[in-house]
Amino acid sequence: MTGTIIPVRTASASYDVEIAPGLLAEVGERVAALLPAGPRMFVVTSPGIWALHGEAFLKGFATAPTVLEVPAGEQHKRLATVERLAEQMAEAGADRDSVLIAFSGGVLGDMTGFLAAGYMRGIRYIQVPTTALAQIDSAIGGKTGVNLAAGKNLFGAFHHPLAVYADTAVLATLPDAELRAGLQEAVKAGIIRDRALFEYMDEHSETVLAGDVAALTHVIAESVRVKAKVVAADEKESGERMLLNLGHTLGHAIEAATKYKALLHGEAVAWGMLAAIGIAERRALVTTDEAERMGRVIRAYGPLKNFSANVGDLVALTAKDKKNRSGSRSFVLPIGIGDATVVRDVSPAELTDAAEAMMELRGEQVTA
Amino acid sequence: MTGTIIPVRTASASYDVEIAPGLLAEVGERVAALLPAGPRMFVVTSPGIWALHGEAFLKGFATAPTVLEVPAGEQHKRLATVERLAEQMAEAGADRDSVLIAFSGGVLGDMTGFLAAGYMRGIRYIQVPTTALAQIDSAIGGKTGVNLAAGKNLFGAFHHPLAVYADTAVLATLPDAELRAGLQEAVKAGIIRDRALFEYMDEHSETVLAGDVAALTHVIAESVRVKAKVVAADEKESGERMLLNLGHTLGHAIEAATKYKALLHGEAVAWGMLAAIGIAERRALVTTDEAERMGRVIRAYGPLKNFSANVGDLVALTAKDKKNRSGSRSFVLPIGIGDATVVRDVSPAELTDAAEAMMELRGEQVTA
Repeated sequence: MTGTIIPVRTASASYDVEIAPGLLAEVGERVAALLPAGPRMFVVTSPGIWALHGEAFLKGFATAPTVLEVPAGEQHKRLATVERLAEQMAEAGADRDSVLIAFSGGVLGDMTGFLAAGYMRGIRYIQVPTTALAQIDSAIGGKTGVNLAAGKNLFGAFHHPLAVYADTAVLATLPDAELRAGLQEAVKAGIIRDRALFEYMDEHSETVLAGDVAALTHVIAESVRVKAKVVAADEKESGERMLLNLGHTLGHAIEAATKYKALLHGEAVAWGMLAAIGIAERRALVTTDEAERMGRVIRAYGPLKNFSANVGDLVALTAKDKKNRSGSRSFVLPIGIGDATVVRDVSPAELTDAAEAMMELRGEQVTA
Repeated sequence: MTGTIIPVRTASASYDVEIAPGLLAEVGERVAALLPAGPRMFVVTSPGIWALHGEAFLKGFATAPTVLEVPAGEQHKRLATVERLAEQMAEAGADRDSVLIAFSGGVLGDMTGFLAAGYMRGIRYIQVPTTALAQIDSAIGGKTGVNLAAGKNLFGAFHHPLAVYADTAVLATLPDAELRAGLQEAVKAGIIRDRALFEYMDEHSETVLAGDVAALTHVIAESVRVKAKVVAADEKESGERMLLNLGHTLGHAIEAATKYKALLHGEAVAWGMLAAIGIAERRALVTTDEAERMGRVIRAYGPLKNFSANVGDLVALTAKDKKNRSGSRSFVLPIGIGDATVVRDVSPAELTDAAEAMMELRGEQVTA
């Protein structure tokens, strides 16, 4: 079996993302073909994923890799966890030729990538993402890192994987809310760069959300294609790559204001996208019809969970966004459906209006 | 005033090392010329260095940078310290345009470089090294990192500074043992790549060790020239750059066996060089005359402090060296004076012999 293969080509790295249902049982063979010298391998995974999929994962490996388990959850995505894993690797004799495999969702995947970036100043790693969010977004493009108390992903590195293997059949074991939240990143990919993907997601939302594996595989693959293109154009996020942050400025603020407990990342991004679309509509970058259609599709992949936050706090938190430079606030806005731009002139007042309008939608959502 | 300027040119970075006595008071002006946009600046330093040199350092700055103090010492060179500094920066509003300045010896300099490599996935930094070891070696070449419990510098990144400013007059305030230990890295530079430097250090050891600023500046500058050449040829330590590790394989083992408490880094490296020279002599890579001359110069920059360790433990510890790949032990050996090579076939028996001979020299040294 060969799945859909999407190449990622950047100035510093070149690798393939393979996407197919049932790919998990073949990861071992793929890795053996990629690394014929047979280096020491270490898998970082969560107890939950390993219990569900460990057996299938091990099927293709002639020699079982060493398994390092880490509890899932943002609260563990910290330097202390990275240090503990690095100590375990050193104890087990990992050297510069050793290879890490992140078999996990995005939180653990980001952390494993950073572990690979830092261990002996950089070893190779492979991503085997198990959530929609990770398959669409976080496993691709080389952004790795951990959280600080001051904010998410504030400490990390750019370090690309050797390969990404995404088994879309694994998504069937996700909690429904997690699948839906992850698919918001696919909606985002459509809005910023691929109108056809957006329209497919609009027209086939029921099939996709029912977990139809062919429809899901199509959505994941087309989203990966968007991500690969954007990353190829701008590896280090100096321009084009910022577009991937549509909905993330306010989304991160909502996550921070609710202490990362009320919403999944994709849900917070969905709220942030609604606010960004509102700003774009008032700036006439999108028509009212386009704004309504985008809002409708975002909600179709909801429901968007309710949360409590103060608008003033949210606006203040966006001032801390990692994308800001020398004090000016960066914001991604859609231009119609299928294009987007980065602006730096969103005023606190404009942002306050948009956040207030978003908060009203939130009330509406609750009663729906 | 313009000091000696030595360019470092690698595939990924291009910057200058400036070396001059009294340079400290001009660092602010240099930085302002380098970064005309006037970004936020953060200085990482130790309380001891700041008390001695903070005033001179601030002289050239129109706007005082934010000072972050960290206690000196290997035990603080850990991810927990990096995390604490990163949180302080985030609290103070550091963004992707902010710039770090490492005003310190090698331990803090390595850690500050890593803080810069990881903060928001990479910000710019400048090295203002205050010890002989840092000016000769660690501030140049982009190796950054922290220690794990399992070993020194096991977690880090390659991240080059924007510039390095080395004020050789500052070395006069170093404890004598620290100056001497640092100069062992200059002896090493001479042995592996620069016979003229080695001979200068042989002939002028008294002047250099008396702290004559012109002689010291010459030795530092010529050592930097060796380091810059080696790093330009092999940025990521796949070949040539390993030569800089002459004496480091056993040196690191001695440091680990004595829990980093008995010897300064340069002293451990000096012992390691003596062992490597012993192996090279038995392999006829160096003549007995050359071996004796190198041993004499290393001792001239001593005395080499005594330490207690078990030869079996030392040999076992070299098996954990970061330079090893897929289980084979790498070892740097001199070829005559001014050249060196990396070998991978040093047997445990050969290493044991060399370590035992080194331990005997140690006894001799004690009585001297």
